[in-house]
Amino acid sequence: MNILIIGAAGMLGRKLVQSLVAKTNLQGRPIRRLVLADIVAPEQPAFDGEIETVAADLSLPGTAERLIQSRPDLICHLAAVVSGEAEADFEKGYSVNLDGTRSLFEAIRLAGKDRPYCPKVVFTSSIVVFGEPLPDIIDDNHCLTPLTSYGTQKAIGELLLADYSRRGFLDGIGIRLPTISIRPGKPNKAASGFFSSILREPLIGEEAVLPVSESVRHWFASPRAAVDFIIHAAELDTARLGSRRTITMPGLSATVGDQIEALRRVAGDGATGLIRREADKAVADIIAGWPRSFDAQRAEELGFKAEKSFDDIIRVHIEDELENALPAREHV
Amino acid sequence: MNILIIGAAGMLGRKLVQSLVAKTNLQGRPIRRLVLADIVAPEQPAFDGEIETVAADLSLPGTAERLIQSRPDLICHLAAVVSGEAEADFEKGYSVNLDGTRSLFEAIRLAGKDRPYCPKVVFTSSIVVFGEPLPDIIDDNHCLTPLTSYGTQKAIGELLLADYSRRGFLDGIGIRLPTISIRPGKPNKAASGFFSSILREPLIGEEAVLPVSESVRHWFASPRAAVDFIIHAAELDTARLGSRRTITMPGLSATVGDQIEALRRVAGDGATGLIRREADKAVADIIAGWPRSFDAQRAEELGFKAEKSFDDIIRVHIEDELENALPAREHV
Repeated sequence: MNILIIGAAGMLGRKLVQSLVAKTNLQGRPIRRLVLADIVAPEQPAFDGEIETVAADLSLPGTAERLIQSRPDLICHLAAVVSGEAEADFEKGYSVNLDGTRSLFEAIRLAGKDRPYCPKVVFTSSIVVFGEPLPDIIDDNHCLTPLTSYGTQKAIGELLLADYSRRGFLDGIGIRLPTISIRPGKPNKAASGFFSSILREPLIGEEAVLPVSESVRHWFASPRAAVDFIIHAAELDTARLGSRRTITMPGLSATVGDQIEALRRVAGDGATGLIRREADKAVADIIAGWPRSFDAQRAEELGFKAEKSFDDIIRVHIEDELENALPAREHV
Repeated sequence: MNILIIGAAGMLGRKLVQSLVAKTNLQGRPIRRLVLADIVAPEQPAFDGEIETVAADLSLPGTAERLIQSRPDLICHLAAVVSGEAEADFEKGYSVNLDGTRSLFEAIRLAGKDRPYCPKVVFTSSIVVFGEPLPDIIDDNHCLTPLTSYGTQKAIGELLLADYSRRGFLDGIGIRLPTISIRPGKPNKAASGFFSSILREPLIGEEAVLPVSESVRHWFASPRAAVDFIIHAAELDTARLGSRRTITMPGLSATVGDQIEALRRVAGDGATGLIRREADKAVADIIAGWPRSFDAQRAEELGFKAEKSFDDIIRVHIEDELENALPAREHV
C-alpha cells in the first residue's frame, strides 16, 4: 500500500499520519510507503516502511505530476487555503482550492493514459458548501449554495471528483466534515474559533471569550472522529456510493449552551467560570448563515460514526491532547 | 445599452438576436450596440444601431478580454460544447464549458479593477445538472448530481456565477433551460433529438423515428419560451434572487404520448401516422436518467412563463418556423 497525503502538515493531516503509522495496514494490506506533502515539509514520524516528506505547492505546474509519480494506491487530499484566507485573497483561494485540486485530478487522469491507473482519492469537503436556504435539519439531497469562496471551491471540487470518478479516471470519495471541536493548539482568528476555545482554554485554566449567544446551534465532530472518517472513507467500497460521491459526515448538533454544560460536567464550575461573554456582532452575523443540524443518513448507513455528546468530545480532547489528565483541575 | 451575446450563431442565439433587434429596448433603455460572438462568425441582422460580429474561441487566452473591451452592460453567455460532444471529448468540454466560462468571469473581474464594472450576466444552464436521486417532481432546493461532464461543467458555471456575483464582480443570473422542443432544423444524433423530430418531421409530411415508449416523461419549453426566459432574466432585478443565482425555468411536463396526442389534435391522424416506432435501448437507458418534472416555484414567482400544453408548443413552431401554415396538410 502506497499512500500520498496532501496537506499532511495540517492539524488533521498530522493526526491522520499518526493513525496510519499506528494501524500499519489499510484495506487489509500493509502500508509500505507514505508520501507526506504540504506547502511546508511535514514532520517525519517514526515508520517502518518507506517514507518521504515533500514541501510542494499544488497550485504550481508540475507539482501534482511529481507527487503521483510513484503511483500511490490511495491519495488523501486534505490541502486547502482555509475559509478566511480564501475570502480575503480571492485569487489565492481559487488557485489552491480549485486549480490545485483540478491539477491533481488531471495528473491522475493523464497518468492513466500510458498504463491503467485509478487510485482511490479521499477528498475533504466541508459543511460550508451549504448556505441557503437553511432548514433546521439538512438532508442528503439538499442543494449546495455556498456563501463563501471557500465553500464554492469545495463544492466545485465535489463536482469534479464525481465526474472524474464516473469517467473511471479515479475512484473518488468526498467527505463533508463538520466543524472540528475541540481543535488543539492556540486560539486563532477564525470566526469558528470560539467553538473550540471556550472549552480548550478553560480546560487548562485559561480564560476564553464567547462572542455569541448560548442558543447558537452548530454541527460538530472531534479531530479523532474526523481522522476516523478519512480512514473509513479510504477503506469503503465506493460501489456503495452511486453517483453521489460526496457524503455529509455524521456529527453532533449542539448549542453553545450544550457545550458549556458538558464542560461543567467534565471540569466543574471553575472551568465554566473562565468563559467571558463579549458579544461580537460580526461573528454572530457570520455564524447565522451556518448549518445547525443534519440528517446524515447516507453516512450512517455507510458506517461513519461521530460522537453522541459533547462530554465525549471533551473526553477525546483530554485523552488525545492533555495526556489523559486534566492539568487545570488544581487551578479551577 | 451595449449587449454582448456569446453563442450568437446557435439556434437560441440567433432567435435571441432577432428578438432583441425587434424589441429595440431592454431594461427601459434603447439598444445601441450589439456584439455577436461565436466560434463561427454569426450572421449580421438588419439593425439600426452599431453591430459587430466576431468569430472567437472563448477557451483561448485573450478572447474574453477582447470581447468585453467595450464594457457591455449586458452579457448573455449561451456558448457551450453540447452534451454529446463534451462526453465524447473530455478535454474540449472542460476547455470550452469550464475554462471558457471562467475566463469570461475573470476578464470581467479584472476589468473592474481599473474602474468600476459590474455587467449583468445571463448564463444558460440546463436541467441536466440534476441526475440522482431523481424524484418524480424536482423542487428548487434539490441537490445537483450531474450524470454527464456537460452537466458537471454547467453546475460548476452556476457556482462560479454565484460566487462572482456575491463578491460584486458581476451581476449574474443563471437559468436552467428545459429540453427545447420543437427544435427547428434537421434531425440530429442527440439522444434528445426525437423529442423534437417526432413532431417536426410529421408536420412537414416526413417520417420520424420514435426510439422509446410513449410513457416516457420529460420537461419541455419551446424555443420562443427559452428566448423569453433569457430576456426576462436580462430585465429582472437580481436583488430578488438572494444567494441562489440560478433558477430552474418553468416548463411543461409531458409524456411522448402527450406529444403525439397534441400532434394529432393540431395536424390529424395523417401526421401521427408518420411516426415509426423503433425501440433503441441505448437511447432509452440515457433518457431514464433524465428529470421528468419540476416544481419551478421560484421561477414562477419571478415571472418566468412557459407553455401550458404541447398544442401551444406545436402552434409556436408553426408560427415561427412554418410561416404560420401547415405545409404538410395536403400530404397527410
